[in-house]
Amino acid sequence: MIKTVEFGDDGSVRLIDQRLLPTQEKWLECKDYREVADAIVKMVVRGAPAIGVTAAGGLALGANSIDTDDIEEFRREFDSVCEHMGGTRPTAVNLFWAIERMKKIALEETGGVAEIKKRLRGEAVKILNDDIAINERMGKNGAPLLADGDVVLTHCNAGALATAGHYGTALGVIKAAHVAGKKISVFADETRPFLQGARLTAWEMKKEGIEVTLITDSMAGYFMKKGAINKVVVGADRIAANGDVANKIGTYSVAVLARTHSIPFYVAAPLSTIDFSTPDGGHIPIEERDVREVSHIGGRQMAPDGINILNPAFDITPNEYISAIITDRGVAEKPYIESLERLGASG
Amino acid sequence: MIKTVEFGDDGSVRLIDQRLLPTQEKWLECKDYREVADAIVKMVVRGAPAIGVTAAGGLALGANSIDTDDIEEFRREFDSVCEHMGGTRPTAVNLFWAIERMKKIALEETGGVAEIKKRLRGEAVKILNDDIAINERMGKNGAPLLADGDVVLTHCNAGALATAGHYGTALGVIKAAHVAGKKISVFADETRPFLQGARLTAWEMKKEGIEVTLITDSMAGYFMKKGAINKVVVGADRIAANGDVANKIGTYSVAVLARTHSIPFYVAAPLSTIDFSTPDGGHIPIEERDVREVSHIGGRQMAPDGINILNPAFDITPNEYISAIITDRGVAEKPYIESLERLGASG
Repeated sequence: MIKTVEFGDDGSVRLIDQRLLPTQEKWLECKDYREVADAIVKMVVRGAPAIGVTAAGGLALGANSIDTDDIEEFRREFDSVCEHMGGTRPTAVNLFWAIERMKKIALEETGGVAEIKKRLRGEAVKILNDDIAINERMGKNGAPLLADGDVVLTHCNAGALATAGHYGTALGVIKAAHVAGKKISVFADETRPFLQGARLTAWEMKKEGIEVTLITDSMAGYFMKKGAINKVVVGADRIAANGDVANKIGTYSVAVLARTHSIPFYVAAPLSTIDFSTPDGGHIPIEERDVREVSHIGGRQMAPDGINILNPAFDITPNEYISAIITDRGVAEKPYIESLERLGASG
Repeated sequence: MIKTVEFGDDGSVRLIDQRLLPTQEKWLECKDYREVADAIVKMVVRGAPAIGVTAAGGLALGANSIDTDDIEEFRREFDSVCEHMGGTRPTAVNLFWAIERMKKIALEETGGVAEIKKRLRGEAVKILNDDIAINERMGKNGAPLLADGDVVLTHCNAGALATAGHYGTALGVIKAAHVAGKKISVFADETRPFLQGARLTAWEMKKEGIEVTLITDSMAGYFMKKGAINKVVVGADRIAANGDVANKIGTYSVAVLARTHSIPFYVAAPLSTIDFSTPDGGHIPIEERDVREVSHIGGRQMAPDGINILNPAFDITPNEYISAIITDRGVAEKPYIESLERLGASG
């Protein structure tokens, strides 16, 4: 079983350093919540559900370090820990969802600060364990959409490494179909600039014994036109109430190509990725990252100095391009504004 | 003026080593035709017109090294030099066009082997000089298609470095519009796996004083949807008689995205890129290159061992996606089977 994040008995947050995969498997141990926040910013850990789980662990760690017995003082300081954590990455809504869950615990009636610290720790562990169970359910819900012999393109990494571990979201659907005995083969876009497809998805699929073929992002259209790909499954960083999906930059291009070639395009994400307070994709903030991720690869300069470079980390795929949204509560179809609301109310 | 290839007085072929750009500007000197062929295979030089010019220089160099006064023996040996050169890269038709031009010279009535070697040398120089003049004309023909204030996306490098030098094909159109006083800004796709956009197009545009913004291939759709791009101009490695275009892998995806966003998609190429003997894109051979170009970047391993990797170097854009084909003899529009034939007959 692939693990992404672990909480130590001392409250430490341990992360597999995804920047070093696939050539090195090293774990980073964070003993301070600021180290956890920094690991999220630097993409030691990435993927919307994994960011949510990691942030929860980081908040429990931060709570532990607050040195007061005064509950109001504790809550004030915990708020500032939450604010620090919320400033790491703006697009993944699971981050804010996890922070809200933890904040709610901190506001509960309690016997004292020690008790609340314990409950926060318990909530972080619950978020981690829930995430694994949620992804298993999502996989089961989505697996019937894949048929024996399918060749499935995925973009970025929406696997175990993008979640608390084990299954993942988009790759969880593929794994569930594989476990059910269907022969599924995967095409992985390399996913520039961070190469999550080449480094993480290829590594996961190989570990799981699922056949994987790596291509550059620019090859997806070519292989769709050749008939080499017949389904697309991706994850999501935030889904608006109307079903517009924010996901890794390049997802929108894949969706346009899929529609042009009449290939079903599925999104797999836990209900915590759906942001019912955001009406549509136009309201989702898009993170701009360091342009060095584009100009340099593996530390080596690829572009000349003195030019403009842009590095949006996500794009928005309008709901009309999406054949279905697979969640842990079931599969939503158009119109998403109604189907997602129904799933949201079903918990 | 940017130069790509030069012929020395001793017949040597000098190439700017495009694998080292933009961080190093080094020239490679080839004193043997096999070194020239090797430089084409290894992409020291690339771009369909540049490959044609370089191959012509290489054949003149190869002719020089044939040690016989017997004209029939010379022609037999020259044929084998041509065969070696023709085995370097299969997709760019300019390679075969240049070889045919040189073969025709070798078959001319002649006073002797020395005379024919001189004529071959003269033909190679003519191909080089013609290429520069052709690209200037192409630029002038295409410039009216660009308007003041346009933001033009280009894929790969179809600039001076893809030709004998100076203007280039797609970038020649942009340069001509710029020289004509129009404010043109360029978006350059980085163009994985070989990064010709990041390394070569960005470098050329900066040298020419044209504003350039580098993005990854996966970002083109995002910026088109935002309205940040309003024209596309690319080059071609081979154009079939019906106007289907073989060009760098990823071009087809850009064409699909351009059509989805109602953005004009232009192809710029000299008449020598049109292969009237190939009826449509389905008959153009697609070169498959070493998968290490995908798995490794700058010598660093990015993907795990033991997975499948595919690396087609080109794709086919069907004629229906192409708004116009800009050539040195004029601008062709649909139906291309007729307009290209007219241009071909106009020489």
